[in-house]
Amino acid sequence: MDYAMRNSRRSEVDPFIVMDVMDAARRAEAAGRKIIHMEVGQPGTPAPAEARAAAVREMDRQALGYTVALGLPELRLRIAKLYHDRHGLDLDPDRVIVTSGSSGAFVLAFTALFDSGDRICLGAPGYPSYRQILRALGLVPVIVNTAAGNRFQPTPENLTDGLSGLLIASPANPTGTMLDREAMASMIFAARERGMSVISDEIYHGIEYDRKAISALEISDDVYVINSFSKYFSMTGWRIGWMVVPSSHIRTLERLAQNMFICAPHISQVAARAAMECEDELQANLSVYIENRRLMLEGLPLAGFHNLAPPDGAFYVYAAVDSLTDDSRKFAAEILEHAGVAVTPGLDFDEARGGRTIRFSYARSSEDIQEGLERLRDFMGRN
Amino acid sequence: MDYAMRNSRRSEVDPFIVMDVMDAARRAEAAGRKIIHMEVGQPGTPAPAEARAAAVREMDRQALGYTVALGLPELRLRIAKLYHDRHGLDLDPDRVIVTSGSSGAFVLAFTALFDSGDRICLGAPGYPSYRQILRALGLVPVIVNTAAGNRFQPTPENLTDGLSGLLIASPANPTGTMLDREAMASMIFAARERGMSVISDEIYHGIEYDRKAISALEISDDVYVINSFSKYFSMTGWRIGWMVVPSSHIRTLERLAQNMFICAPHISQVAARAAMECEDELQANLSVYIENRRLMLEGLPLAGFHNLAPPDGAFYVYAAVDSLTDDSRKFAAEILEHAGVAVTPGLDFDEARGGRTIRFSYARSSEDIQEGLERLRDFMGRN
Repeated sequence: MDYAMRNSRRSEVDPFIVMDVMDAARRAEAAGRKIIHMEVGQPGTPAPAEARAAAVREMDRQALGYTVALGLPELRLRIAKLYHDRHGLDLDPDRVIVTSGSSGAFVLAFTALFDSGDRICLGAPGYPSYRQILRALGLVPVIVNTAAGNRFQPTPENLTDGLSGLLIASPANPTGTMLDREAMASMIFAARERGMSVISDEIYHGIEYDRKAISALEISDDVYVINSFSKYFSMTGWRIGWMVVPSSHIRTLERLAQNMFICAPHISQVAARAAMECEDELQANLSVYIENRRLMLEGLPLAGFHNLAPPDGAFYVYAAVDSLTDDSRKFAAEILEHAGVAVTPGLDFDEARGGRTIRFSYARSSEDIQEGLERLRDFMGRN
Repeated sequence: MDYAMRNSRRSEVDPFIVMDVMDAARRAEAAGRKIIHMEVGQPGTPAPAEARAAAVREMDRQALGYTVALGLPELRLRIAKLYHDRHGLDLDPDRVIVTSGSSGAFVLAFTALFDSGDRICLGAPGYPSYRQILRALGLVPVIVNTAAGNRFQPTPENLTDGLSGLLIASPANPTGTMLDREAMASMIFAARERGMSVISDEIYHGIEYDRKAISALEISDDVYVINSFSKYFSMTGWRIGWMVVPSSHIRTLERLAQNMFICAPHISQVAARAAMECEDELQANLSVYIENRRLMLEGLPLAGFHNLAPPDGAFYVYAAVDSLTDDSRKFAAEILEHAGVAVTPGLDFDEARGGRTIRFSYARSSEDIQEGLERLRDFMGRN
């Protein structure tokens, strides 16, 4: 044999740059440096104490084998109730599908809705894995540039012929902006009128500031909604999320989930169920984000980052740095090296324009955020 | 809008019948019946005690956020050592990729190696999710009928033109048969000479009876090997597995894993690392499988199941039931209803011929196996 096995064309996805930044930060820490983490989008807090306690109890009680593919019935029931509590909706628990994080939900949703070569509309800037997972599945992301004037959200005017799907996110990553009810309804109706399937990423629900996020389910039952326990419930590494699908799609999703995942991690399902009763601890986490957001919107301009979109939700500030660099990856590497602050280059979120943007995450402790802002101020002062 | 969102063509995968059988068995249990589980391929034992203890300790020690995409370095290192201990191989730990179960590994492997429409050769009978995941990813499973005379394993003569990949499994599900070194080498070389990529499913390694299983890595480095903590390490519901890939593929797999999974469950990685030091408990589990295999090979013929393939590994007996039925799904439903024993219809493993076969799993306690065999004897006596 004179040649080796080759990788497929569709596996040629871009790296998820934030993961590489995280790697570089860890190497610096292993070498003894203290790094302030404003790169990766995960809370510094663990899962709620009672969620961890429930996991410990269950480990002693049973073998924790496979669950049914759609998830533990009591967890699906409790998630359905969340839509009552948050949005006043009466949701059939059968429509709730427990997944291995929102990542697993995206793989299932894209597979369930689209065939090879189908074109799916996304706004840029946006969560990088949307387009990468689409490509890996043989699908075609159609990226539309959003405008700061539209708070970086797509509009019905962005929809064109030949699209099979639309993905919206509210609050969005990396900007934290939300679609209000009217804007979300007009996007969903415009897409459905064109025969497009609609997926709404609601992973940052629960982390909102001046007003509550709208769920796409308030507007239509004929959408896929994706959510997760990673952010509000502070359970990133547990890999546990969910989706809500139209009733007529449940059986298809069940078959796909049975084969592609078997089930979400059993212990994570148990912990997630318990996390949903930990409102006090979760609201305390939210208070930290509220304080951090205030610190960031005050401190970043003082450090020289003036062009910011104040977030409606999530825990990010997206900053234009075009007066400072046209190579955000190199700029982020310099910030890590000289300031010991890890930030994410905008290229992750916007291939075309992200060379001139940076995303700051403020999901860690307020002490960390304050120190990070001081370091950024020093770094920018030196430049 | 006068129509609803539709599912894709590639989402029209068959159900994973064993999961439906498991569901039916649970409903019977919920109604108060005692069911003997010979259907689903999972140990009745929990993760080793020390693995669970390590998980508990880690929950108190850190937030259990995302790990790096390829997995905790100490776990990858320890898995590499397993190939030294089991196969005398000196494996670069960088080639080990920690995955969300073998399911996650198959999704990654198929995505990394094949493009839409590529044809991948599989033997029937075989693990049903192979073909279902391939279809869901827009790939084409090419099923070859294996023969009892070849112990239900494919041979080089089964390979034809126009194939992009070959998937082999040893020990195989549902038959438990293994490829010996010569047979595995001839399959791998024949496939590679045709330019086909080769994936070796080694999930049942460690559960072997008269002789040790061969790893494809003993024959070539230019293969993908897939394994899991589900079976030998008794950790099904933890969703944790691994793959070994050629060095030149690591970065591609890292990018795919970053985007499609982010990482395998953190707590499961911690528990898996500890499970690898629990040899006494795992060998005790193995002793039970050895005893159960003896009970099955003695008891099934007494119950009237004569046409069996004695397994070399795994914990299954595949039985031809063509003298009893040509509808294995209905037959399995009757066994569940009348005998209270859950078994898997062969249709899961062999779409063409599985109407006349049944798979018995003997992964539970010996007491359960004995009671199951008695119930089967009674049931068959009544027919």
